[in-house]
Amino acid sequence: MKIYTGCIPCFARQAVEAAEMSTDDPALRQTIIRKALHSMAELPYDRTPPHAGMIIHRIVKNLLGDIDPYRDLKYTYNLKALNLYPEMKDIIARSRNRLETAVRLAIAGNNIDFGVRMGCDHVDLHGVIEEALQKPLVIDHTERFAESLEQNQNILYVADNAGEVVFDRVLVEEIPDFEERVVFVVKGEPVLNDATMQDAEEAGLTGIVRVIDNGSDAPGTIIETCSESFVRELNRADLIISKGQGNYETLSEEPRNVFFLLKAKCPVIARDLGVQVGDLVLESLALKQESL
Amino acid sequence: MKIYTGCIPCFARQAVEAAEMSTDDPALRQTIIRKALHSMAELPYDRTPPHAGMIIHRIVKNLLGDIDPYRDLKYTYNLKALNLYPEMKDIIARSRNRLETAVRLAIAGNNIDFGVRMGCDHVDLHGVIEEALQKPLVIDHTERFAESLEQNQNILYVADNAGEVVFDRVLVEEIPDFEERVVFVVKGEPVLNDATMQDAEEAGLTGIVRVIDNGSDAPGTIIETCSESFVRELNRADLIISKGQGNYETLSEEPRNVFFLLKAKCPVIARDLGVQVGDLVLESLALKQESL
Repeated sequence: MKIYTGCIPCFARQAVEAAEMSTDDPALRQTIIRKALHSMAELPYDRTPPHAGMIIHRIVKNLLGDIDPYRDLKYTYNLKALNLYPEMKDIIARSRNRLETAVRLAIAGNNIDFGVRMGCDHVDLHGVIEEALQKPLVIDHTERFAESLEQNQNILYVADNAGEVVFDRVLVEEIPDFEERVVFVVKGEPVLNDATMQDAEEAGLTGIVRVIDNGSDAPGTIIETCSESFVRELNRADLIISKGQGNYETLSEEPRNVFFLLKAKCPVIARDLGVQVGDLVLESLALKQESL
Repeated sequence: MKIYTGCIPCFARQAVEAAEMSTDDPALRQTIIRKALHSMAELPYDRTPPHAGMIIHRIVKNLLGDIDPYRDLKYTYNLKALNLYPEMKDIIARSRNRLETAVRLAIAGNNIDFGVRMGCDHVDLHGVIEEALQKPLVIDHTERFAESLEQNQNILYVADNAGEVVFDRVLVEEIPDFEERVVFVVKGEPVLNDATMQDAEEAGLTGIVRVIDNGSDAPGTIIETCSESFVRELNRADLIISKGQGNYETLSEEPRNVFFLLKAKCPVIARDLGVQVGDLVLESLALKQESL
């Protein structure tokens, strides 16, 4: 998905939030914001939106060194989600369709996204679980997803955010032989509240599946910024589970067997998907392309 | 009120909306947005927020010539508000406190503001009248306002938006001897949906009071951009009625007898006023300064 003009105010907000998260020094904050605005003015509009997030966080890194301003917030949400892990396992145990319930929980976890919401640093995790269990999936390719899990062997699970990865773990654990079949992918470097290897460890994923990082510092999967080893894994996979908006924005035109699990949180993505803001989605890219 | 970092995403949104309102040509839109972002990056942060709006609309003007992209929308809201004028006069006739009711109606009109709301081009005028008649004024200096109207002779009514000026007319007409005492001020050039002389004419104000323009193209009252003749009127006035956020942002540190009538529509201004977003305000600057 290419950048829409409607994305620009959101980039400006991300720059302001990154500046405010990264330093208390008003002069440095101004420098970050000014540099980011100049970069946004020069942005090639044929790129995807995560390109902008990547540039903003590179500006922060260049000015402040290797810092991870979202570290505390990520740790907090990993812990919060881990506290709910037993409850989620229980919900699945009591459910009629374990896979569908696990899909819904994984989508619920996609609410933990500090790249999207203006000024929002609190997510009511009980509330979002409740919502995801009750609301319809407005695009619902669960059946195709279940078939694809049966038919394919090598599954790449492309994660999105910290905290959310605990919800992802619940879904991973519902995939038969997940220990052998699933490779779980996190970001190569910190950007926004996207999950890195540390988050995968904190969420207990490294103990159950092979976790790799994609070598990139983009809040999405911009393939040309990823490591060769990640690209090999991507090419080897015959089923890709893609979590969240950033991965949708960067993988939605890839000719691969991708399933997008996300909550549409901004009007631009909602329009691109043909849904409303707030809608829950499990979309098979293959099925979508077949129907075009 | 100086620019806060929280204003930056709103400036970016204004740039995008100005580009989309002004031209259908994608290349021109991009040029407007890119130039605006560069300008926002260079913005002196010791200015007030309307400075940014002024710069954005000057970029549009430089690229596209003297156009007024909001003209149709302004005309539509002048007409819509005029349709409600008899009803508003009736509400006042039936009210226990005519001045207070007229103040509330003038504040209701401040909802017609296309500089503030993301993607909003529809305002339910009946709804906002209802709201303004029922909700408390969270800052309520109506008593001081009534006293000040009795004690002072020369009243400058600094208007905000098209459509809203019909609501202003209702308040103006409740001021004793308004024909002699009130000078009504509109913008010197089109910017956003701010009222110009044409709107004052369409709203019927030019027939009842002296209307002047401030000579400026800023969406507020940046005094150094105003004409000498406006500044003379400002200095002659002993009571200033200031409508809306843009005028608050630019007049809130002036050592003058100003009354601000507005609805707080953004978190930055709400914080500056010490109220919540959505709150209705009639604030006497003098009374505020006395209490500090």
